[in-house]
Amino acid sequence: MVDAAALRDVLDGRWAHIRRAARERLDDSRFTPVPGESIEQARSRITGLLAELPGDLGVTAAFPSEYGGSFDPGAAVVAAEMLGHVDLSLMVKAGVQWGLFGGAVSALGTHRHHEAYVRDIMSAELMGCFAMTETGHGSDVHRLRTTCTYDPSSQTFDLHTPHEAARKDYIGNAARDGRMAVVFAQLITQGSPKGVHAFLVPIRDAQGDPMPGVTIGDDRHKAGLLGVDNGRLSFDHVSVPRDMLLDRYGQVAEDGTYSSPIENDTRRFFTMLGTLVRGRVSVGGASSAATKVALTIAVRYGDVRRQFGAPGHDREVVLNDYLAHQRKLLVALAKSYALHFGQEELVTKMHAVQVAGAGAAEHDQRELESRAAGLKAAQTWHATHTIQMCREACGGAGYLSENRLPGLKADTDVFTTFEGDNTVLLQLVAKGLLTGYRDAFGSLDGWGRTAFVADQVREMMLERTAARSLIQRLVDAVPGRGDEVALTDRGWQLKMLEDREKHVLEGVIRRLRKGAATKKDRQFDIFNDVQDHVLKTATAHIDRVVLEAFVAGIERTGDPDVKALLSKVCDLYALTTIEADRGWFLEHQRLTPARSKAVTGAVNDLLRELRPHMATLVDGFGLPDTWLDAAILREEPDRQETMAKHDAEG
Amino acid sequence: MVDAAALRDVLDGRWAHIRRAARERLDDSRFTPVPGESIEQARSRITGLLAELPGDLGVTAAFPSEYGGSFDPGAAVVAAEMLGHVDLSLMVKAGVQWGLFGGAVSALGTHRHHEAYVRDIMSAELMGCFAMTETGHGSDVHRLRTTCTYDPSSQTFDLHTPHEAARKDYIGNAARDGRMAVVFAQLITQGSPKGVHAFLVPIRDAQGDPMPGVTIGDDRHKAGLLGVDNGRLSFDHVSVPRDMLLDRYGQVAEDGTYSSPIENDTRRFFTMLGTLVRGRVSVGGASSAATKVALTIAVRYGDVRRQFGAPGHDREVVLNDYLAHQRKLLVALAKSYALHFGQEELVTKMHAVQVAGAGAAEHDQRELESRAAGLKAAQTWHATHTIQMCREACGGAGYLSENRLPGLKADTDVFTTFEGDNTVLLQLVAKGLLTGYRDAFGSLDGWGRTAFVADQVREMMLERTAARSLIQRLVDAVPGRGDEVALTDRGWQLKMLEDREKHVLEGVIRRLRKGAATKKDRQFDIFNDVQDHVLKTATAHIDRVVLEAFVAGIERTGDPDVKALLSKVCDLYALTTIEADRGWFLEHQRLTPARSKAVTGAVNDLLRELRPHMATLVDGFGLPDTWLDAAILREEPDRQETMAKHDAEG
Repeated sequence: MVDAAALRDVLDGRWAHIRRAARERLDDSRFTPVPGESIEQARSRITGLLAELPGDLGVTAAFPSEYGGSFDPGAAVVAAEMLGHVDLSLMVKAGVQWGLFGGAVSALGTHRHHEAYVRDIMSAELMGCFAMTETGHGSDVHRLRTTCTYDPSSQTFDLHTPHEAARKDYIGNAARDGRMAVVFAQLITQGSPKGVHAFLVPIRDAQGDPMPGVTIGDDRHKAGLLGVDNGRLSFDHVSVPRDMLLDRYGQVAEDGTYSSPIENDTRRFFTMLGTLVRGRVSVGGASSAATKVALTIAVRYGDVRRQFGAPGHDREVVLNDYLAHQRKLLVALAKSYALHFGQEELVTKMHAVQVAGAGAAEHDQRELESRAAGLKAAQTWHATHTIQMCREACGGAGYLSENRLPGLKADTDVFTTFEGDNTVLLQLVAKGLLTGYRDAFGSLDGWGRTAFVADQVREMMLERTAARSLIQRLVDAVPGRGDEVALTDRGWQLKMLEDREKHVLEGVIRRLRKGAATKKDRQFDIFNDVQDHVLKTATAHIDRVVLEAFVAGIERTGDPDVKALLSKVCDLYALTTIEADRGWFLEHQRLTPARSKAVTGAVNDLLRELRPHMATLVDGFGLPDTWLDAAILREEPDRQETMAKHDAEG
Repeated sequence: MVDAAALRDVLDGRWAHIRRAARERLDDSRFTPVPGESIEQARSRITGLLAELPGDLGVTAAFPSEYGGSFDPGAAVVAAEMLGHVDLSLMVKAGVQWGLFGGAVSALGTHRHHEAYVRDIMSAELMGCFAMTETGHGSDVHRLRTTCTYDPSSQTFDLHTPHEAARKDYIGNAARDGRMAVVFAQLITQGSPKGVHAFLVPIRDAQGDPMPGVTIGDDRHKAGLLGVDNGRLSFDHVSVPRDMLLDRYGQVAEDGTYSSPIENDTRRFFTMLGTLVRGRVSVGGASSAATKVALTIAVRYGDVRRQFGAPGHDREVVLNDYLAHQRKLLVALAKSYALHFGQEELVTKMHAVQVAGAGAAEHDQRELESRAAGLKAAQTWHATHTIQMCREACGGAGYLSENRLPGLKADTDVFTTFEGDNTVLLQLVAKGLLTGYRDAFGSLDGWGRTAFVADQVREMMLERTAARSLIQRLVDAVPGRGDEVALTDRGWQLKMLEDREKHVLEGVIRRLRKGAATKKDRQFDIFNDVQDHVLKTATAHIDRVVLEAFVAGIERTGDPDVKALLSKVCDLYALTTIEADRGWFLEHQRLTPARSKAVTGAVNDLLRELRPHMATLVDGFGLPDTWLDAAILREEPDRQETMAKHDAEG
């Protein structure tokens, strides 16, 4: 049997010390979510816990060392992930305070902002908001409507919400705790718009009352995350001193002259946004953390809960012995493992880019943004599907709040549309894959404004970021169409996902070019007619990079037993990914009908082989009992013993 | 343009008067769900509303006319469906009181029980529980552990909970309101077990305190349905008078002699359960009702919410114009239409069987149970997926409780496992399709106890229940493999789903027989190894009967414009159903690769054609504004006008 601790050590990876600190310092029932709280109770409890978070958890590790951080962005993201195991309101509250608000002040502000505010932000003395999203503009942030107009006579900006759809909405820390906000608005100076910039704006006075001209609304009750005080901010000609522009990427002189180290408005805006990629990476990680909690509960319950007698079984059969149950839990577990390694690789990449700062290559930054977008979408949808499935796998018990699953489901639900709507993020990933696309259209908007000019698959696409040479060797070893190769041949699995990505991408390019030639007067239709194909490009890409990250993770593993187990799990991930899209592989004759059926057979064989390791696989996540906190896990052993006794007697 | 009212009239069907009554009498903000309530507030509000429900809604229509009902089970189920639009806690509370508790007293009790209790049950003076499920036994109800042992000396039963896993759990009306419970327990008399029977047991006294020997627990906070007081009941040797056995299907004489009109224990038990099919039908209908509310909100929002500019568009594009959005909303809408007709047919069938009573043919009863199980699973999973998708389609706004979607999601979530776990229900459907299976195994348990003997596809399977001759004619007109036929040919669509069902079923039978021959010593494995295949049999069957019901519904439609629109929607349902499983059709060479790709193209064409009708399709559901109650629908028109003005100015 594989040692769960050895497995955990492999999963812990580079920031193992952060994970260990969380397991020690947060193994405390004070941090356990409380179902059935009122909004007020939840908000007050979470705000209290935020201030109490132990300093060595790494939650403020991204701040510069001169203020007491360690400038370790990877640690900060892993710390957020660990909070995701414990309480998602706490994770989001911390993410708003230190990641979004603090991160924006650090990344977009300059020395005077850092000196004035960073210490108080880190200690949570100064609570703040990140006010970007507007009611009428979520995904399309460069068209935000809030304006901030410079007046040289007073040397102040006039911050204004022109109409109701321009109010800032869903803003964490706004409804209750925030004293300042980083407000994103269209900067206008000398009569000329300069694009979206960030301003640091007090929103409440020392008594907690709204500042003059600031209207604060409350988003009130939500599906989950009750401990986060989301609200709305509107500004009625609020005066903002000139030095409250976070001016790292754009400065306004006393006379109103605008200057920036980055000429192009759009590029400047995306550079500003790019510094904020950490939020997206954190949300993906925290979603996966919540998913692991749900899977641990469902797998442990499925190992003790019995249902229906069976011939040849003295007792009723435990749920995990049913193929249908394995089809749910083990398949999701394999994907969670794959995404874990995908996330670890992403965090490593993010850390390198952010530590390099201005020295990072633009290519690496783009790759990071694309990868962050894709993995955020993949992990949050996986969370939504898997937690729901775990809830169903626990039957009626899964619906009771005392068993934790309802809270996990409700809290993570928003992640599919927050920090970037998943569908929009997939488009972003797809665009990254198309040569010249971004440059031709020059913006994040839906469809671009000029004719499409993509010519070839960008090299980046098939550039492998992990275990490059190993993967290349495996793929190269696959003969021809590979029909004869074993389904568990890693090279064949990699090649299947690689070929699909390439083929889908080439198909989109072909269709877009054809559309551009034939639908000149209907530019919207050129893109809209292939939108499903564009989105598929992104998912095919994500599947491939995740599999490669998994392969790289296995390659790094020393313990041979752990390595062998991970290899089986990787087979399951690869084959279920192929099985789920076997329609495509058959349509494109990458699978024969017989081989396609064989994939399903191989998946079922793997489920049987992995069945004895289900418990080990969740133990490998290394979650202390206090983080699981499900009544069914506490009660079940006794109950089952009693039942076993009853069975034996009756 | 199609007239939404004409469309609504078609959907309203046979129990249109019940639907109209609900639209009139429940169009009142008193019935609007209140987000953010405490459990106590929600329970108290819902209990109050239950007593106030207008009498003409049909909620008590299933009771016999001598007590003021109309013995109209179809009306009762449609009334429950209509409550599902309004408040799901109210729907479930009504379902527990009148459907489960009242229904059990009516169906399982005899004249003296009816005389003594039905009037007070109908008026909700006497609130009651339906105590079947135990913590340790949900789906496998014939192995319940609670015992009820007859003692001739005292002429009472001794009702007892032998261990904790035998406590009754998730019981509606138990935690707060119930005064009596119908308790399901193993009847033992003269030292011999007689199988599960139902007993009418007082659980609270006039002061609301638990009766002696009864322990009442509270399931407390749940994911949703806060207005329903689910709880736990345990019995410590509670004395139950002999005449409190609900004795229609099994009597115990004073001396303890047992008698029953049905010899076979298992058959008796399933006859008793069969009378309770209404609950399952109601839950399916109410899930679909909630789904319609979510779709109406998301479609109307998607028609006004704009996102991203596009070339050739002066203003930003409304969400519903995006192909990706149509792929979400329109596809779900088409399935909701299909399921609506499937449900209408099911209710008609159920009504006929229940009105016929003992005169109903056993074959019809079995068909009804199978159909109810299948449509319950299909509708509740469709609700879970679709409401989630609608929430995401509304972005951050979809996460706010003021926009209704969080409540719909949380409340309906439990339906996938309650009134029968969906996976278990699919197995039940599959069993109904296998000749001799039920008779060979004689029980609802997982895998049966003897070798498998199925020989041929049961005739029932391809017996068409609606518009038989039309469907036969359409199918017969399809030549050979049908490759040349248009994808919108209804006969071809029907034939595809019919062929798949037959092929999958024959495959399961073949594999089971082979397994029985080769795995004699591993009986559990015979079934477990093909469990995924068994479940697929059920879903293939359900897809086919739903499509046939849709076709029959279109055939009944008089208005030619409505008929043409429904026909397009039916194409979309049929083709997306085929597209979703095109892996199977390709594997089994029912689709060539080229034709499979053509299906995707045809779906996209249909989405374009149906785009102008999206609003009409949700208007056809006929939901008054008070039932939608989403802030985004109230605010958006103004907001959009302001934005349009801003766009025009800017």
